[in-house]
Amino acid sequence: MELQLALDMIGLEEAIEMVAELRDLIDIIEIGTPFVICEGLRAVREMRKVFPEKRILADLKIMDAGYHEAKSAFLAGADIVTVLGASNDRTISEAVRAAKEENKEIMVDMIDVSALAERTKEIDALGVDYVCVHTAFDLQHTGENPLLDLEKLNAVLIHAKAAVAGGIGLDTLPAILKERPEIIVVGGSISNQKDKRATASLIYEQIKREG
Amino acid sequence: MELQLALDMIGLEEAIEMVAELRDLIDIIEIGTPFVICEGLRAVREMRKVFPEKRILADLKIMDAGYHEAKSAFLAGADIVTVLGASNDRTISEAVRAAKEENKEIMVDMIDVSALAERTKEIDALGVDYVCVHTAFDLQHTGENPLLDLEKLNAVLIHAKAAVAGGIGLDTLPAILKERPEIIVVGGSISNQKDKRATASLIYEQIKREG
Repeated sequence: MELQLALDMIGLEEAIEMVAELRDLIDIIEIGTPFVICEGLRAVREMRKVFPEKRILADLKIMDAGYHEAKSAFLAGADIVTVLGASNDRTISEAVRAAKEENKEIMVDMIDVSALAERTKEIDALGVDYVCVHTAFDLQHTGENPLLDLEKLNAVLIHAKAAVAGGIGLDTLPAILKERPEIIVVGGSISNQKDKRATASLIYEQIKREG
Repeated sequence: MELQLALDMIGLEEAIEMVAELRDLIDIIEIGTPFVICEGLRAVREMRKVFPEKRILADLKIMDAGYHEAKSAFLAGADIVTVLGASNDRTISEAVRAAKEENKEIMVDMIDVSALAERTKEIDALGVDYVCVHTAFDLQHTGENPLLDLEKLNAVLIHAKAAVAGGIGLDTLPAILKERPEIIVVGGSISNQKDKRATASLIYEQIKREG
């Protein structure tokens, strides 16, 4: 299992500083959607330069023009690009086509997809690498969390690997780990801490202890 | 009715040149999603500086963090920001909250929403300014076009104004105009022409002739 650090509402300098501080405690650097909106693919290019050994996910949440948008992020240095589960199959397939050309990967973000099991089966047949259950930031205040969705995902996933995102922290991690998703996305639970290294260490060690 | 020029797979310099050439023939400059991904909100800020009299739409296709993402685009100079109809109601409401604070507008993009009439009614009650039917770029090769969806939209819309996007050109414009959407989005049908001004003139004049 791998730890992905989501960098969302943050500037480039601060993001580089944070990743430098946590370099040995994260597997994947996520350039979050608000970060991409503010900085553009420059954020991916700069991170690629400063952290050449790290995997980088560009959270584009692609909804259309799958080939073009995915390709541009791969060319900027991303290893994984996200496409929305709410998009049409052709957009997902086009993003997969760009990934195959570049020998990179696609993650489908199932945020706000209602027929989760049914849609996951369709998407799993399209050749994507990861399917990610994701409780929206805007819904986390209701106490919603992605654990139930992860269980549903694991029940139907055959080819792609599972990922999970949305408000995950030290409190919810043990239950998540039991479901053994390949990628666990953590954002605010690390980045909003005063001592980021302490929290990241605890999370990273738990993930690696479980394999 | 207004003409919105979508700038999608384009660099900043070329985009500024194109808008300068068509300045008197367009009402709204759209910074398209692939353009935002490549350049970030810098694209909005630069357009704002060069074309202070024009309305600017930032096609963020927001799926989460509605308040934060919309606010950042408004602060960069956007007049209208898009949110996905596939997102949850809370995300749409949060984007509307940011718009009200800045005295700006939200357009909801119904791309890939299957229960169009039903979802439009829900969204129309959330205080958004425009609802846009939109045939995905990735589906336009199938011959799909947004006219039927526009008719469905007009049948249920009460508060918000209608907008329409997705492969619209001189051939499909007359049928679209009969439905009298407030905003008509045109991209490739103008930007891919050798003589952009000639095509833009024909489209702009038809739109303004119908009011």
